[in-house]
Amino acid sequence: MSEKIILFDSTLRDGAQAEGISFSVEDKIRVLETLDRVGIDIIEAGNPGSNPKDIEFFERVKDIELKHSKLCAFGSTRRSSIGVEDDTNLQAIIQADTPAVAIFGKAWPFHITEIIKTTLDENLAMVEDTMAFLKANGKAVTFDAEHFFDGYKMDPAYAIEVLKAAERGGAQCVALCDTNGGTLPMEIMEIVKHVASEVNIAVGIHCHNDSGLGVANSIMAVQAGARQVQGTFLGYGERCGNANLSSIIPNLQLKLGYDCLSPESLEKLTSSAIRIAEISNYVLSGREPFVGKSAFAHKGGMHIDAVLKAPTSFEHIPPESVGNQRRILMSEVAGRSTIIQLINEIDPNLTKKSEETTRVMDRIKELEYQGYQFEGAESSIKLLIRKELGKYRPFFQIEDFKTIGEKPVEGRALSASAVVKVNVEGQSEINAAEGDGPVNALDKALRKALEIFYPKIKEVRLTDFKVRVIDKGATASKVRVLIESTDGEDIWTNVGVSTDVIEASLIALIDSIEYKLLNDMEKKLKEFKFI
Amino acid sequence: MSEKIILFDSTLRDGAQAEGISFSVEDKIRVLETLDRVGIDIIEAGNPGSNPKDIEFFERVKDIELKHSKLCAFGSTRRSSIGVEDDTNLQAIIQADTPAVAIFGKAWPFHITEIIKTTLDENLAMVEDTMAFLKANGKAVTFDAEHFFDGYKMDPAYAIEVLKAAERGGAQCVALCDTNGGTLPMEIMEIVKHVASEVNIAVGIHCHNDSGLGVANSIMAVQAGARQVQGTFLGYGERCGNANLSSIIPNLQLKLGYDCLSPESLEKLTSSAIRIAEISNYVLSGREPFVGKSAFAHKGGMHIDAVLKAPTSFEHIPPESVGNQRRILMSEVAGRSTIIQLINEIDPNLTKKSEETTRVMDRIKELEYQGYQFEGAESSIKLLIRKELGKYRPFFQIEDFKTIGEKPVEGRALSASAVVKVNVEGQSEINAAEGDGPVNALDKALRKALEIFYPKIKEVRLTDFKVRVIDKGATASKVRVLIESTDGEDIWTNVGVSTDVIEASLIALIDSIEYKLLNDMEKKLKEFKFI
Repeated sequence: MSEKIILFDSTLRDGAQAEGISFSVEDKIRVLETLDRVGIDIIEAGNPGSNPKDIEFFERVKDIELKHSKLCAFGSTRRSSIGVEDDTNLQAIIQADTPAVAIFGKAWPFHITEIIKTTLDENLAMVEDTMAFLKANGKAVTFDAEHFFDGYKMDPAYAIEVLKAAERGGAQCVALCDTNGGTLPMEIMEIVKHVASEVNIAVGIHCHNDSGLGVANSIMAVQAGARQVQGTFLGYGERCGNANLSSIIPNLQLKLGYDCLSPESLEKLTSSAIRIAEISNYVLSGREPFVGKSAFAHKGGMHIDAVLKAPTSFEHIPPESVGNQRRILMSEVAGRSTIIQLINEIDPNLTKKSEETTRVMDRIKELEYQGYQFEGAESSIKLLIRKELGKYRPFFQIEDFKTIGEKPVEGRALSASAVVKVNVEGQSEINAAEGDGPVNALDKALRKALEIFYPKIKEVRLTDFKVRVIDKGATASKVRVLIESTDGEDIWTNVGVSTDVIEASLIALIDSIEYKLLNDMEKKLKEFKFI
Repeated sequence: MSEKIILFDSTLRDGAQAEGISFSVEDKIRVLETLDRVGIDIIEAGNPGSNPKDIEFFERVKDIELKHSKLCAFGSTRRSSIGVEDDTNLQAIIQADTPAVAIFGKAWPFHITEIIKTTLDENLAMVEDTMAFLKANGKAVTFDAEHFFDGYKMDPAYAIEVLKAAERGGAQCVALCDTNGGTLPMEIMEIVKHVASEVNIAVGIHCHNDSGLGVANSIMAVQAGARQVQGTFLGYGERCGNANLSSIIPNLQLKLGYDCLSPESLEKLTSSAIRIAEISNYVLSGREPFVGKSAFAHKGGMHIDAVLKAPTSFEHIPPESVGNQRRILMSEVAGRSTIIQLINEIDPNLTKKSEETTRVMDRIKELEYQGYQFEGAESSIKLLIRKELGKYRPFFQIEDFKTIGEKPVEGRALSASAVVKVNVEGQSEINAAEGDGPVNALDKALRKALEIFYPKIKEVRLTDFKVRVIDKGATASKVRVLIESTDGEDIWTNVGVSTDVIEASLIALIDSIEYKLLNDMEKKLKEFKFI
């Protein structure tokens, strides 16, 4: 039996501190569900005592049932010289009503006397009182010993006293924080070993990546006895980020034999990381260990040859074990088995080896090369398959469009307008609309023109619109537009890519409307038992 | 006297294998000069035996005198069953005429018998012969033992035999390669310790980052006795990249006391990394340890307060030691103490309580309410402060603009164009441009119109462009546009918010150009000691 490591994810709390990341309550719920699905043990999701948005989040989340994870609220020890009952921060934590709680406190004498200006003894009391109060309120408490390693280097005896105060108060785990991210792997190993011999509760580790050592330090800590690992997906976090859980997990599990996730959950690692990046509107470099698009990409004839002869010759783990895949650059040989499932929904007689399957695969590869990404845009891929199989006739064609953006005339709001001409079964229709920007104007004009032919389009509403620059080179870069639509019954997402944001949006808008019309038709045919 | 570590940079060779990186000969020369200036000891710059572009590069570079670095050509041991004199690869290396040479050879029995299909004995002869041949030709040779750690784990005695063959042949250094990037820090330490006790020449280390451990593994190897460190600037390289030299160097020097660079050279680390990213057209995330824009960026009132009281409270090293700088991020939580610092850069007499400070704070709050986020866009906030303090006169005004997007005519690429009319001190100028989308067209037209008045605008190039929808509601939502610009010396970011993506982009573009012009003016005034 391999030893269990408790996975503690702070993407929604410490990760939210990252420059450029700003989660809405809706975003946080989607991240939470992703983390639960992959099998994270404890999800630290916010600081209700310092942040009204987090209070709203913890209210909303009370209705959500998590399958695996324990929800955790974050806060600090009581302030000095007041009782725990009088601390509004702690009250907010109780009200957040989470089974788990993480509380940070000071472990570095310098910080205690110089920054928060209290005494070393009062600090110990603050830690112990807070733990006892939360335990009495039924919480499973982790104590985050902030700046623990700096504190230990200054005064090891006191740093350990702080942990013992937490233990006495009733903490279940003391997490040692390398808050500034400056500690080196060998130091981590020695100090964690000593701590593990001094306390009788679980030891946790919380690293930052300021020295580029967040992953290594976390692994060394586990090798030295830590059993809870804190980090964030993709290493989100302030400055250079937190320790990257999506790298730590496969290292611990596949190389050192610890029990972090079930093998099936581990296979969700890559898709979960992509989903979280997508929600955060965070551009992946592709070089992310284990989960990046380039992580198992081979370039150069010799490497490719060797990898095809024996994968271990240039791959440190099987890419499938983390849900990633090998990519042979230039001549990609991608995963038929996923596509065939979608193909069989439309034509059950086709197989992996059918010529049609090859044609669909080739088309997907070509589009991916252009910058398309079909993760989360299945409706676009379903349309693509129908088109390649010849089982599709477009509901309309765009004959012409024009968008005009102008400097707004003082006192008038109009700055963008669009003209669209569509053709439905030989009949042309032109219409125009104003909008907040050219894409909005185009969307409105297109719908107005089409509603004459297809009144049900009135039901459709765009619910999300995301623009992502997919390669460098500033405003001349390619952009990928993802739009999410709903007709009140279904939600679907479509994708468009172009160097022109308007064209990319239009591609996705057209797909969105086509998908709606196709879906309505299928529903009607099913109703009349035609299919 | 601290011990000297030989810095071996492979940005131009292994780094060039990265997906998406492709250096021209001109690019390579500019990277070479940057690496020489920062004080890298050995620069591995290409593989003349496999790459005609590299042959051209080594020809061109013969005229360039390096101040500090030794130029190095890369290749492999002779092929099996032929003499060294008959190996065209080795001939190309001799012709490249570099003082240093790095030669890779096999150290993993599995690779020898299964991939290159020769005998273990012939492999030893290939290594020894190649070293002897190159030594006789006056080269300082490093032997790169490919897959050394995998080889050692399979057959330690043979792996060490390979190194001894290199030593007998006359190599100056044997570099142990973790080619697949799968080895863990503790394994690296043990194996390097053993190797260092077995060979009598310098031991080097060459790591990859597939496990997120490239930096840690390199440091552990040095602690175990390695004295040459191979890596690439910013960790460029295939798959997840090579060990990141720009993280390894400050760790070894500032934390472990090894001698890598002079303190003055270390201060060039950040600007060198930015320059190399620039030449490679590689978008920095900002989270790069030591050299990233966010590496010393502080957010959240409490952290900022503490950092201002004592920098070590949230900084593991002084940012200036690597040529980086502290940044106080603007955000809703930031508060007056951060803003006043920026205000005081412009007017040292103002205090937190000044009426002007209140006005600036109110304006920031109002803009944040509109959806602005100044985190990461200090240059926009600096302009805002100047405007509120009345210490600013715009360099230009936009009198009018128009963008036109059209359905592309078959066979013609133009789909977007823009017309812009600017006014500089009463003089109007109108110009137009085509572009990939309306924003790109607008950017180009604006620059063309302004270059007549301000020729230095030609130096500016947009390096990143991000669009974020800030509230739901589909295409009619507000968007926030962040653009990052560079003039090759500085990098700055500006922000614009609007319901119209074009207007938001234009706001940010205008700020970017204003900031460049203001900065140039300030520099000139400082030069002439006016301020």
